[in-house]
Amino acid sequence: MKVEKLAQKSNDDKENEAGARDKLIETASQIMREGDTIDISFSELSVRSGLNSALVKYYFGNKDGLLEAILERDMTKIVEDVGLLIKKDMPPEDKLRHHIGAVIDTYYEFPYIHRLTMRLIRDLPPEGAREIADKYLKPLSEAYNIFVGDGIKSGVFRDVDPDLFYSAVTGAADRFFTGKLVWKYCYGRTDFDERMRDAYRNQTVDLIMNGILK
Amino acid sequence: MKVEKLAQKSNDDKENEAGARDKLIETASQIMREGDTIDISFSELSVRSGLNSALVKYYFGNKDGLLEAILERDMTKIVEDVGLLIKKDMPPEDKLRHHIGAVIDTYYEFPYIHRLTMRLIRDLPPEGAREIADKYLKPLSEAYNIFVGDGIKSGVFRDVDPDLFYSAVTGAADRFFTGKLVWKYCYGRTDFDERMRDAYRNQTVDLIMNGILK
Repeated sequence: MKVEKLAQKSNDDKENEAGARDKLIETASQIMREGDTIDISFSELSVRSGLNSALVKYYFGNKDGLLEAILERDMTKIVEDVGLLIKKDMPPEDKLRHHIGAVIDTYYEFPYIHRLTMRLIRDLPPEGAREIADKYLKPLSEAYNIFVGDGIKSGVFRDVDPDLFYSAVTGAADRFFTGKLVWKYCYGRTDFDERMRDAYRNQTVDLIMNGILK
Repeated sequence: MKVEKLAQKSNDDKENEAGARDKLIETASQIMREGDTIDISFSELSVRSGLNSALVKYYFGNKDGLLEAILERDMTKIVEDVGLLIKKDMPPEDKLRHHIGAVIDTYYEFPYIHRLTMRLIRDLPPEGAREIADKYLKPLSEAYNIFVGDGIKSGVFRDVDPDLFYSAVTGAADRFFTGKLVWKYCYGRTDFDERMRDAYRNQTVDLIMNGILK
């Protein structure tokens, strides 16, 4: 085999490898989203991805490793987006309104993300828990301190504690999308779709903005 | 043995029986509260209650039966309180303010209650899920339709969809108390106590009331 062919083969392997790893992450994410759960079985993952579940061990070490990889994929973009928003030249009330809408869209897309974060923080050894808090939660908490602090300073927001506010906002944003089954059994409705997401986003963003604006 | 003695013995047995059943419920509730989890092991339950875990099977059939009994204990009072509040002669904004404060206190006391409800609705057969929705969730949803609808009619509240509002309020109320570990790892704080609950209650009730009041 020529050197070029060998190099090509090695690249193909790398692509296949990345493809299989990504596919396991995406399939696990879909299972959690559809089942409204963070409990995934290796057998379901294997059937739905078409990949041998031994690959989970190979790529991620164990189930926690897979869960961490899902969290990393989903959270990295969120943290980056918030970083970009902070730098924008925009009044704090517009930043906050935009951000809350984005949080709601994120929970619609990844309704498991809070439970997944809490599960890892609870079950990992303390240094692993601290690492997750440092990588994903602290930057978001700092962003709230900046958004909200700027709005209080400029006189448009009421005087609130940003950490407590962060908790209320993410809780309000999240709850609706973990409640698909409530929608079904309580209201007899199955129209839990993008139209519902938009209605929830509009009302909840207004509720919170009216709540914090002076 | 005299008849009186026999009757006495039978009463004692009944008391012991009720005592053991209640103790299993209370111990399981404490384990879920302290561990911020709804996963309880029979061995931990047995050690902490001082009771044989075979009694779970005897009283509750299985683990789901125990979980349903915990939900019943915790939710019945909530639904009763909301029913009493509806009947009170009080402006809708005062009722809502009082109610949101009570929701926050409830989540402080039973931080597992939403996850427990969702777990049972997800895992029980459809008729069991519907029963839980009918017993606990529908009365609360109806109460929101009354509180919020009255306030819209009387002109003090903005025009909101009560079901979406219910979701935002309970999410905001709940999130803080499932975040004890965030408090620890993200902010390095361990003062997750009644003072914090009061601070959270005050700020969140104000935020939501400012959000809905015209």
